[in-house]
Amino acid sequence: MSEAQLLKTHKNFEGSTQFWEHDSQSTGTKMKFSTFIPEGRAPKGALIWLSGLTCTDENFITKAGAQKVLQEQNLMVICPDTSPRGLQLPGEHESYDFGSGASFYVDATTEGYRDHYRMSSYIVNELHELLQNQFGIAKDRISLMGHSMGGHGALTLGLKHPEKFRSLSAFAPISNPTACPWGTKAFKGYLGADESEWKKWDATALIEAGKRHPHAILVDQGTADEFYEKKQLLPENLRTACEQKGQSLVLNLRQGYDHSYYFIATFIESHVLFHAEAIRK
Amino acid sequence: MSEAQLLKTHKNFEGSTQFWEHDSQSTGTKMKFSTFIPEGRAPKGALIWLSGLTCTDENFITKAGAQKVLQEQNLMVICPDTSPRGLQLPGEHESYDFGSGASFYVDATTEGYRDHYRMSSYIVNELHELLQNQFGIAKDRISLMGHSMGGHGALTLGLKHPEKFRSLSAFAPISNPTACPWGTKAFKGYLGADESEWKKWDATALIEAGKRHPHAILVDQGTADEFYEKKQLLPENLRTACEQKGQSLVLNLRQGYDHSYYFIATFIESHVLFHAEAIRK
Repeated sequence: MSEAQLLKTHKNFEGSTQFWEHDSQSTGTKMKFSTFIPEGRAPKGALIWLSGLTCTDENFITKAGAQKVLQEQNLMVICPDTSPRGLQLPGEHESYDFGSGASFYVDATTEGYRDHYRMSSYIVNELHELLQNQFGIAKDRISLMGHSMGGHGALTLGLKHPEKFRSLSAFAPISNPTACPWGTKAFKGYLGADESEWKKWDATALIEAGKRHPHAILVDQGTADEFYEKKQLLPENLRTACEQKGQSLVLNLRQGYDHSYYFIATFIESHVLFHAEAIRK
Repeated sequence: MSEAQLLKTHKNFEGSTQFWEHDSQSTGTKMKFSTFIPEGRAPKGALIWLSGLTCTDENFITKAGAQKVLQEQNLMVICPDTSPRGLQLPGEHESYDFGSGASFYVDATTEGYRDHYRMSSYIVNELHELLQNQFGIAKDRISLMGHSMGGHGALTLGLKHPEKFRSLSAFAPISNPTACPWGTKAFKGYLGADESEWKKWDATALIEAGKRHPHAILVDQGTADEFYEKKQLLPENLRTACEQKGQSLVLNLRQGYDHSYYFIATFIESHVLFHAEAIRK
């Protein structure tokens, strides 16, 4: 694996907010990511943040205000881009909810996309190894969190690979993508017409099929979130599946909060502390 | 005065981050601003944040991460845009450091600009009154802070009108604009060729000419700031003038920090607490 190259660094809360680029074997493209690395001792663990539709590696690190608590907890965060870039696949740049900026963190199987849109492999294998090799993180001190499409990514990748991720959390995740417009559009495009394949990338369906994470899962959902109201997120379906199948879940419905980074900024400290406790054990 | 219209609101740390628009008598244009208003009791005071070159009303409210401490201190913040918009004055949109996004917070006197670029009047009179009339802030509980060009704005407007602003602080301010390329270009364009007029809008020159603020002034400057290195900011000139003329100044040189919002986010809590203490007295 080639080392990631540092593009920019900014001192921030004694640590460093940084921007990186590397050649990804999984996607066959260059991939960008951002990090915050606390100052001082080696970080005791890493949180992978997966962003939502239309985002890049910059949104979380710029807007969430997580650096202060990450420094205090001696944790790093790594925020990959939301899809490969620089390609010209059929339909890739025509809509905000499919293709570039909208990978849904699957390994695609449809023509063209299967050669590059391998974001699950990129995160579960390549980024996981890079955290160990380049940043010195122990392989059992890595957790997953994300927002919206990235919340879906955090939940599904964590449920499929519980041995690789110590704890999982999400803000307003697309909790049951096979039952909402965003998910069905994306899965048809990335996975084809066979809906049984879709269920392998759906957090609610994975729980129903018997997948488990040993740690409790943390989810925050704002009640004034327009996409919650439009039934794109469906956290209640996830809660029902967890209750029926015995997966521990903390679902916080936050009165009056919407889908924006102002919601994330308000509750990110509680998510970082949740992961810090899981990693400390 | 017409009331400002609310464009968007986001619940944030129990309070609200909001975006507004109003018709400005000072500039003869619509003007946008953002606010954070803490939840609960009426805010006990307001901080006006003035942004730097190329910024809008969105940069600070999105990136600085100030909302948590503002909620804790029961203070609101108001962040005006950095210039009038929607005009087509000669040379207004040709460079990043003059015209749109680059008002330098003066009342211009040159042809064309004098009819609209009246940002000093807009902030000192119009925004000050709007804080009282629309947001219920006591007129003696309003303070000024800003970054770079906006730090220059905070220092100069506060030194020219100490009775209107309880306390002043700045991040990496353009401290002596008559002695740096940014300032001399802007002042020639807004104020004409008579350099004696320029000194009325220069914090260091105002101190040298006998202006004072009754409260100590707080300035933070990163030592790895590229514009500090290029001598656009010149905080030492301000310090020398303050020492010679007896203006109390706390100038913190922050090792390794640059000119970005990562620097601001790191130290914004200390600035808010500085103003909170001044307003509480």
